[in-house]
Amino acid sequence: MEHAQHGYIGRKDDYLRRLRRIEGQARGLQRMVDEEAYCIDILTQVSAMTKALQAVGLGLLEEHMNHCVVNAAQESDAAGQEKVDEAMQAITRLVRS
Amino acid sequence: MEHAQHGYIGRKDDYLRRLRRIEGQARGLQRMVDEEAYCIDILTQVSAMTKALQAVGLGLLEEHMNHCVVNAAQESDAAGQEKVDEAMQAITRLVRS
Amino acid sequence: MEHAQHGYIGRKDDYLRRLRRIEGQARGLQRMVDEEAYCIDILTQVSAMTKALQAVGLGLLEEHMNHCVVNAAQESDAAGQEKVDEAMQAITRLVRS
Amino acid sequence: MEHAQHGYIGRKDDYLRRLRRIEGQARGLQRMVDEEAYCIDILTQVSAMTKALQAVGLGLLEEHMNHCVVNAAQESDAAGQEKVDEAMQAITRLVRS
Repeated sequence: MEHAQHGYIGRKDDYLRRLRRIEGQARGLQRMVDEEAYCIDILTQVSAMTKALQAVGLGLLEEHMNHCVVNAAQESDAAGQEKVDEAMQAITRLVRS
Repeated sequence: MEHAQHGYIGRKDDYLRRLRRIEGQARGLQRMVDEEAYCIDILTQVSAMTKALQAVGLGLLEEHMNHCVVNAAQESDAAGQEKVDEAMQAITRLVRS
Repeated sequence: MEHAQHGYIGRKDDYLRRLRRIEGQARGLQRMVDEEAYCIDILTQVSAMTKALQAVGLGLLEEHMNHCVVNAAQESDAAGQEKVDEAMQAITRLVRS
Repeated sequence: MEHAQHGYIGRKDDYLRRLRRIEGQARGLQRMVDEEAYCIDILTQVSAMTKALQAVGLGLLEEHMNHCVVNAAQESDAAGQEKVDEAMQAITRLVRS
């Protein structure tokens, strides 16, 4: 039951769809640069893509906490806190990026 | 034992000390504006203060997760997930601010 | 005319008022920690204060660019680009904090 | 001389190369989700990709300010301030995303 912790798996197709759209945004940005679009228009797309990527990150984090962190806490305090430590490092990277 | 969940209480003095320093930074910014300091120097202080405030937020969040979220998860799946939902809303606000 | 560049000076009172409110938020946070308020409620205030501080930073940056950067650019390309470099360092710190 | 403002054009290949790498990171994330990788490892890649994207945004912004904003300021105060307004909207979106 190793996979019990991978909370996102039930919504795998949704995440794959969103990541494909983000990949498409990266291609759209290349097209804009290649066609020498106006900088500000490119920056608007960069912000939209950053927001989409952050939303994926926050969604994955929520499922991780709902499954992996909650399960670990039910195992023991120490296991729960180890998972919290790990999650906090990921959260700190998300907040700072 | 209502307070069992307030994980930061053991380090209350540390948080109070950091928040007093942040209050001092807010006063320092007023002094800079009042003395008509150079904009870029003011912005450097704004960034330093924002970072200090974020570090306090991340510290409080970590203790909240280590205590409140872990305890709720040990009570029941539903209680754990309710606390995770609430924490995720706070994390989303931190990431977006 | 050294101060011609300090674009925020015309709105000095507005900035001082906003920074005093931010100082008040820092004191409010100390009160919440001291009275052992619920972590999530403290985090909500941390996010509100971070947003207020960022808004002050963005406001000061805008006035800096409208005055100092525009004036420097009118002096020479090199002077304009020097001020842009300096502003970009401040922007990078704001984006990453 | 419409293109005089597109400051990034001299480094178009560099931006295209960085955006292709970001596109590759988006594909790598899909692979990780598809292979059911550990959430925290996926989040680490999300943060790395967000940082790379932000660096592209900040680079484009710098070239925009060095060319388009500086040129507009040299035309007139009003033209300069119009470009500063537009740039500030893009900066605000970058800071908030």
